[in-house]
Amino acid sequence: MSKTIAINAGSSSLKWQLYEMPSEAVVAKGIVERIGLNDSIFTIKYGEDKKYEEVVDINDHELAVKMLLDKLIELNILSSYDEITGVGHRVVAGGEYFKDSTIIEGDVLAKIEELAELAPLHNPANAMGIKAFKKILPEIISVAVFDTAFHTTMPKHNYLYSIPTEYYEKYSARKYGAHGTSHKYVAERAAEMLGRPIEELKIITCHLGNGASITAVDGGKSVDTSMGFTPLAGVTMGTRSGDIDPSLLPYLMNKLGLTDVQEMIDILNKKSGLLGLTGLSSDMRDLEANIDKEEVQVAYDVFTDRIRKYIGSYVTVMNGVDAIVFTAGIGENDAHVRSEVIKGMTWFGCEIDAEKNNVRGKQTTISTEDSKVKVFLIPTDEELMIARDVERLRK
Amino acid sequence: MSKTIAINAGSSSLKWQLYEMPSEAVVAKGIVERIGLNDSIFTIKYGEDKKYEEVVDINDHELAVKMLLDKLIELNILSSYDEITGVGHRVVAGGEYFKDSTIIEGDVLAKIEELAELAPLHNPANAMGIKAFKKILPEIISVAVFDTAFHTTMPKHNYLYSIPTEYYEKYSARKYGAHGTSHKYVAERAAEMLGRPIEELKIITCHLGNGASITAVDGGKSVDTSMGFTPLAGVTMGTRSGDIDPSLLPYLMNKLGLTDVQEMIDILNKKSGLLGLTGLSSDMRDLEANIDKEEVQVAYDVFTDRIRKYIGSYVTVMNGVDAIVFTAGIGENDAHVRSEVIKGMTWFGCEIDAEKNNVRGKQTTISTEDSKVKVFLIPTDEELMIARDVERLRK
Repeated sequence: MSKTIAINAGSSSLKWQLYEMPSEAVVAKGIVERIGLNDSIFTIKYGEDKKYEEVVDINDHELAVKMLLDKLIELNILSSYDEITGVGHRVVAGGEYFKDSTIIEGDVLAKIEELAELAPLHNPANAMGIKAFKKILPEIISVAVFDTAFHTTMPKHNYLYSIPTEYYEKYSARKYGAHGTSHKYVAERAAEMLGRPIEELKIITCHLGNGASITAVDGGKSVDTSMGFTPLAGVTMGTRSGDIDPSLLPYLMNKLGLTDVQEMIDILNKKSGLLGLTGLSSDMRDLEANIDKEEVQVAYDVFTDRIRKYIGSYVTVMNGVDAIVFTAGIGENDAHVRSEVIKGMTWFGCEIDAEKNNVRGKQTTISTEDSKVKVFLIPTDEELMIARDVERLRK
Repeated sequence: MSKTIAINAGSSSLKWQLYEMPSEAVVAKGIVERIGLNDSIFTIKYGEDKKYEEVVDINDHELAVKMLLDKLIELNILSSYDEITGVGHRVVAGGEYFKDSTIIEGDVLAKIEELAELAPLHNPANAMGIKAFKKILPEIISVAVFDTAFHTTMPKHNYLYSIPTEYYEKYSARKYGAHGTSHKYVAERAAEMLGRPIEELKIITCHLGNGASITAVDGGKSVDTSMGFTPLAGVTMGTRSGDIDPSLLPYLMNKLGLTDVQEMIDILNKKSGLLGLTGLSSDMRDLEANIDKEEVQVAYDVFTDRIRKYIGSYVTVMNGVDAIVFTAGIGENDAHVRSEVIKGMTWFGCEIDAEKNNVRGKQTTISTEDSKVKVFLIPTDEELMIARDVERLRK
C-alpha cells in the first residue's frame, strides 16, 4: 500500500496528516507542538477514535519526524518507513517563482529560503520541515505546495500596487495573496455542485478562519484576492486589521511613542481585528456569546461589512457571479455571519434560505431555490489538496 | 445687492469665487498664488471673458485679501466692502466636531486649528484664510464648510478601523473621508435628474480628480466613502497610492534605507498613484495620449479597476444602487475611464450608451435607455455649495 503524508511545519510545530493513496483515506493525523522548547507535546489520532499523546522534550524538527515515524510503526499504522511514498509540504510564500506545486529538487529549497523575506514567520519554518523529511526519508518524492500558487494567475493590474513601479521590479513588492490551496479546493467543489465546467463559472470564495481572505475565481483561475503582499491586508480577521489607511502608521506611532514601524505592524497583526475592536477575544465563538455587548455588535458588523464589500467588489471584477462559497472555521460554522454577509446582495439576486443555512461543517447549498447566485457551504481540505498534488507529481 | 465670496485657502494660495445671491450668478473669480514668496501672482476673471493679472510680492493672506477687495472695487465689480455680506471658507478636516457647515464664532476657529493634526497640510492654511477675512471684514458672517461634514453620517461599523478601539477613543483614529461637499452636491443633482426624493435613493458618487474618492449615498446620507483617516486611502490617484498592504511600509523602508516612516508616507502621497506606476505623469490627459505604452495601459487598468471595485462594494453596502455619478476633472472629461469602469456592471443591469458618453463637462445621462442603474455625468460645484451654505446660515 502507498501512503502520502501532508505536512504543515511551523517554527515550533509540525502538523501532519497521513493518507492512503489513491483512496484518499485518512489513516492518521496529528501534531507535534513546542518543538525546541521543554515539554513538547506529541499527539497522534488514528483508527476510529484512538489517540496517542506524549509530553517529552523534542529538540528539533528532525527529531520530531523520526519520533513520528517510529511511533507510527509502533502503533501498527505503518509497517515500515518504505510504506510512505511521498511527502507534501505546505509552503506559505512562493513569490513569482512557483506557479504550481513543485517537486523539491535542484534549487527549489534554496528559493523557498530566499523567499523568507516575503513570509518571515513561515517560510523558514516550512524549510525546516522539508529538511527534516529529506534527511530521514531521502529517497521519496517531496513536493512543495504553495499558498500563493493559485493566485499567480492574477492579471498584472490586480496584483500591482499604485506605488512606483521600480518597487515591484526591484523588490517584488506586489500582491501575492494566501490560502490559495483552500480557495482552489472549494472553487472546484463548487463547480461540481453546480454541475458545470469550472472554465465557464465565476465563483467568489470566502475562506473565513482566524486568518480570512476572499478570492474571485473566474474560469477556475484566481483573478483577485483580498490578502496582499502579506496576509495582513484585506478583511478584518481574528487579530489582524486588514486594510487601513497607511497614514495611520506615523500618526499612531507618534501617539504611542513608538519609533520602529515594525512594532506598529506587529500591533496590526497581533492585537487588532476582532480582538482589538472588542478587547475580549479574537475568536468569533466567544464574540457570538457576547453579542449583547455594544462593542461586540460593532465588531461583528465591521467583520461582516468588510467581507460583504470584498464580495461586491469581485462581482464587478468578473462582471457577475454564479456562486459564493463559505469555508474554514467561521465560514463553515457560523450561520449568522453567512446570513449577515449575504443580506447586502438580495438586490442582485442572491438570497440565503434560513433553514438550509442552519447547518455546520458539511458540504451543502444554503441559498434559496430561486436565488440567481448560489451560496454554498464547503468544508475546506488543504491537507487533501497537498496529498493529491504529491500523487499528481509522483506520476 | 448682496454678494457672497467662497474661499479655498492653501498655505501659499487663496482661491476665491464671488457670487451674487440669491441669484447664484458668478460675478468674478480668481486666485492669488505664491503668497509669502517673491513674485506672487494675482488673477481675477470677470465679465464675459475679462482677465486681470498682476505679479507682485504679497507677503501674507491678509494682504492678499485686502488687495483682492480693493481691486474688485477698482474694476467696478464691487462698489464697496459692504456689498459683501458673507464669506464661506472651505475647511478640509472637521473631525467629529463639525457635522454641518458652521458659523465661525466662539471656539470654532480654535477647533479648526486643533484639528490640524488630522489635515496638517490643509487646516492651518484654511485657518489663515479665515483670520485674514475676519480682520478685514470683521462684521460679516463667516462660515466654515467642511470636506468631512457630509461623511459624519457614516455608521460606526463603516468608520471604525479594525484596530484597538482605544485608538479611536483616545486619538480619534477613524475614517473621516473627504470631498464631502462635492459628493453631496452631485448626489442632490442626481436625485433631481431621477425626479425622485433623495430620501428613497441609493446613489454612488465618483469624484475623480487629481484626488479621487467614491461615496455610497443612501437616502441622501453618506454611509461609506473610500478616503480614510486622510485622503491617502481608497482608489488610485494622480500621485497617491490609495489602499496598500501596510506591511509594505517596513519592507520598502528597509529596501530604500529610510528610517522615518513619514518619508515613506510622503512617497505614497506624492510619488505614487498614476505617476508612480507610469513614471510619466500624474495627469490622466498625458496618459491617455500615451496609452500605447504598456506601463500606461497597466496604470490605466489599475485606476479603473480600483474605482470599479469600490462601486461594487458599495452596491452591497446599500444592497442596491439607483444611479452612479461621475464628477470632477477625470469624471467629467474622460469618457474612456467612465466606460471602462461601468464595463464590470452590465451583469447587474448597468450599461453605458457609447454615444451619450461621448461628452465633456455637462450635466447629462450617459447610460442606455434600458439601463436599470442610471449613470450620470454631473459637473461638481463646491464653491456654489459654500456660497449656498453661507446664505442658509445667514438667515
